[in-house]
Amino acid sequence: MKIVLAQLDYHIGNFLENTTNIVLEIKNAQQNNADLIVFSELSVCGYPPQDLLERREFVSKCETEIKRIARICTDIGAIIGGPTINPDKEGKLLFNSAFFLYEGKIKQVFHKSLLPTYDIFDEYRYFEPNRNFSILGFKGQKIAVTICEDLWDEQPVENEFARRRLYTVNPMKELSQFKPDILINIAASPFSHQRTGLKKKIFIDKARQYQVPVIYVNQVGGQTQLIFEGGSMAIDKSGRIVEQLNYFSPDTRIVDTEQLTGKGRLPVVFEEPDRIKMVHDALITGIKGYFQKLNLRKALIGLSGGIDSAVTLVLAVRALGKENVHSLLMPSQYSSDHSVTDSIQLSENLDVNYDIIDIQKPYNTFLKILKPIFKDLPEDITEENIQSRIRGLILMAYSNKFGNILLNTSNKSEAAVGYGTLYGDMAGGLSILGDVYKTDVYKLAELINRKKIIIPQNIINKPPSAELKPDQKDTDSLPEYDVLDKVLYEYIELQKSPEELISTGSYDENLINRIIKMIIKNEYKRYQTPPILRISSKAFGEGRRIPLTAKW
Amino acid sequence: MKIVLAQLDYHIGNFLENTTNIVLEIKNAQQNNADLIVFSELSVCGYPPQDLLERREFVSKCETEIKRIARICTDIGAIIGGPTINPDKEGKLLFNSAFFLYEGKIKQVFHKSLLPTYDIFDEYRYFEPNRNFSILGFKGQKIAVTICEDLWDEQPVENEFARRRLYTVNPMKELSQFKPDILINIAASPFSHQRTGLKKKIFIDKARQYQVPVIYVNQVGGQTQLIFEGGSMAIDKSGRIVEQLNYFSPDTRIVDTEQLTGKGRLPVVFEEPDRIKMVHDALITGIKGYFQKLNLRKALIGLSGGIDSAVTLVLAVRALGKENVHSLLMPSQYSSDHSVTDSIQLSENLDVNYDIIDIQKPYNTFLKILKPIFKDLPEDITEENIQSRIRGLILMAYSNKFGNILLNTSNKSEAAVGYGTLYGDMAGGLSILGDVYKTDVYKLAELINRKKIIIPQNIINKPPSAELKPDQKDTDSLPEYDVLDKVLYEYIELQKSPEELISTGSYDENLINRIIKMIIKNEYKRYQTPPILRISSKAFGEGRRIPLTAKW
Repeated sequence: MKIVLAQLDYHIGNFLENTTNIVLEIKNAQQNNADLIVFSELSVCGYPPQDLLERREFVSKCETEIKRIARICTDIGAIIGGPTINPDKEGKLLFNSAFFLYEGKIKQVFHKSLLPTYDIFDEYRYFEPNRNFSILGFKGQKIAVTICEDLWDEQPVENEFARRRLYTVNPMKELSQFKPDILINIAASPFSHQRTGLKKKIFIDKARQYQVPVIYVNQVGGQTQLIFEGGSMAIDKSGRIVEQLNYFSPDTRIVDTEQLTGKGRLPVVFEEPDRIKMVHDALITGIKGYFQKLNLRKALIGLSGGIDSAVTLVLAVRALGKENVHSLLMPSQYSSDHSVTDSIQLSENLDVNYDIIDIQKPYNTFLKILKPIFKDLPEDITEENIQSRIRGLILMAYSNKFGNILLNTSNKSEAAVGYGTLYGDMAGGLSILGDVYKTDVYKLAELINRKKIIIPQNIINKPPSAELKPDQKDTDSLPEYDVLDKVLYEYIELQKSPEELISTGSYDENLINRIIKMIIKNEYKRYQTPPILRISSKAFGEGRRIPLTAKW
Repeated sequence: MKIVLAQLDYHIGNFLENTTNIVLEIKNAQQNNADLIVFSELSVCGYPPQDLLERREFVSKCETEIKRIARICTDIGAIIGGPTINPDKEGKLLFNSAFFLYEGKIKQVFHKSLLPTYDIFDEYRYFEPNRNFSILGFKGQKIAVTICEDLWDEQPVENEFARRRLYTVNPMKELSQFKPDILINIAASPFSHQRTGLKKKIFIDKARQYQVPVIYVNQVGGQTQLIFEGGSMAIDKSGRIVEQLNYFSPDTRIVDTEQLTGKGRLPVVFEEPDRIKMVHDALITGIKGYFQKLNLRKALIGLSGGIDSAVTLVLAVRALGKENVHSLLMPSQYSSDHSVTDSIQLSENLDVNYDIIDIQKPYNTFLKILKPIFKDLPEDITEENIQSRIRGLILMAYSNKFGNILLNTSNKSEAAVGYGTLYGDMAGGLSILGDVYKTDVYKLAELINRKKIIIPQNIINKPPSAELKPDQKDTDSLPEYDVLDKVLYEYIELQKSPEELISTGSYDENLINRIIKMIIKNEYKRYQTPPILRISSKAFGEGRRIPLTAKW
């Protein structure tokens, strides 16, 4: 049986575009004499549709489109994802379903059993879990149809307090009673660095355990915060990857099930990109997705002379093209000369247009009009924030006038400890580095400069500074980033308790307490940040929900 | 049996304070010779703890505190809420549990069966649903212990597309096999206007259906966005409310079960406050909760001369005291004279200190420094936003210097259609009116002025205007608020489709399409707004999750 793995980038709710792309792939597959074409989870509407699933017109549009697509599946089978209405009177209104289309009709429907409801996932918000298992019989083959999490009955957990087995049902065990010849998994599995290997392991293990070939079709592309890496695969019954689709771009491949016996075709030699390269590509995909899907074209970046804005600028240029990116340099009396010259050099290296606006005048104006109220109170963080907010205001004014979307340049380390100004450097339509720790921002800069110097070396070498008062350094207020990032990772991603962190003996107790206090205290700032491109297993934003007024 | 209903305000994660308050109530109950004292859902840690439940140290602290509290429950029984660890190897890590404490020990534990996972609720994110039902035997009485949603097997739905029966289990039906003498429900049921009557109906119906008295104990107080109204009740077996506790303040009452036979004591004559009075009190509770729990004292409000900031100021004064509220008036060349005089009059009526800062100078400065870039491009929304952001900057500077938290004054109608400036009038630590439609803001103003004029009549009478360009009126860009608000309510709360709205014939098709387009287009602005005090069944924020990049 010839099966096409169709790894597409869907635009949530853009039914016209999604259906058009799906139909195109089906027609191609027909021309290639394929027997079956497989699309990803909720492909008819794009994943994650979130609360659009609560709207009658959205769900009924999904149904209409599936029927429309079914009509062209005359001599080819198609598996496609979409919501269905739960016919029972009790339980959640919807199922997360896989439709089997053939002979112009919806022939069979399979529902998702394991509904991820953790981190950024909220599937039990909408869907009833399936408990009735059935097999798809097609052209003499028995096909087990599963949907994403259905194969994740055992979770690869980083956090020791988390559960490995979140569900009391194991769909593949249930389906194995039918002795399937092929296992298909349609997925919408978002990227998180260091997890692509784990994903492979999940599928390889299932192939080996059940001695069955696995076809895994993921979606690809950016969906606001979430980035889907694609990387769809065909695995033979001995657990060897025989076909692997592109990372971070749409891709379609045809696989013959005869090659999946574990004897035939040799496994692909697929060199996995290194972690930082994957992050780099993921962020570019995220930027592209945001702009394309919102029908935007131009971006704006405020260049401080620091590494975060430099890396953001490079990523934006790679995602959108140099002609669509503009940079603003906004020096103050506290800016070092090199901040401006380095930023100019960077913009020129990238051939990006820039403007320079000195913020001295508005800063003095604000000090003057505030003087009757502030009187002789000493300068403090207020004056630093005023500078940052003047820059935010200028960037937004440029954005309003010319339609360039402001990209936020804050990194995860800063966001964690609240080292940033709300409505100032925390402004923007999309945060590019908000899930990238500072130490990884350096690694991204190294990667960018590997072949030729794009980011001036001085930007990388100089000690990080907000330049909001004379001779300021980040380390005046923060621990060194290499220590800070380790603690943040263990506290945020691994969810280790302060006691556990202290008991390792690797860190000073006061330091741990100080860092954690900063994290907790600045929850309110993170509440108002732009959406953050998620590249880790625990990003700030929708996947991390902390009550602001908690005392903890 | 004498049962104490203990309706307290918990501070999430503040175990010292929560335990102290709980212990105090137990001691009081002991002195009053009560047999049993009942606290609310997850009372040991406060509701909703959200992702703090994923932290080992948080869950283990809950356990420690429950054991500590158990020790003083020697001659009195106590029912208290807290998380427990699911002893099975499979399924979610935790249960949402009710502990029965007696004779110094944890005697019995009951788990929640129905886990709300919709709107602002995410309980299946953390908890495994209970499927084993048991009864509490205490002093010769059989007590059915349920937790909040357990009695909501049938939902009172406003949205026709939503499910009435979200669960396949009916806990009270299961528990009825034990023939309980009393039904206890410990809850954390947040306020939403027009729903307090529905809550009563739920409990009254259960009492009648199972011919059993109902004891319902809710928590009270503000938890960031969520406001808990309290309103705990004792209902006799014939469905009459025999005791009702305060709305919006901690309260404790003792009830004798002999009064719950349906014959004894007369039902309370409890005059339900009207809807707007409830909203008024809820918002004050929300402000108080935010400030108290974050250990803040002082607030700041920018007064525009419009009704939103006027109502916000009054609510802030009522929540925090006039001495803790400051107002800033920031006129520009487009401000009408009455904007300033009305705002001064309002501040004086409330005896609130104010400052006046003219924004003309910084506005001119920005125009000047942007001139080389903007050249001769015509004025547009950019210049309006600059004014709004200058005000935001000044307010934040005052906030930084003096520690006053900026209250956001945007209303729900504006937030819905994006009639506001990010980082300008959309700034603040907490949004007071972000879930109140403009037409209800007027009703709040009427209520405030009922006994004596506090808000100058001119503020109420004049047509709403942002005053960001000459002779601007809200109706230049928006439909009349009475029409707009109806459409918004039907689209947002009732989730009606555009087609349904048009088919009623009540609205013009173009108007509907224009409004809905504005709602969808401005999702990105709402993503970055401060937490909004929730008073409706569908507020912007955590309870409404829409993908930003959707095309819909």
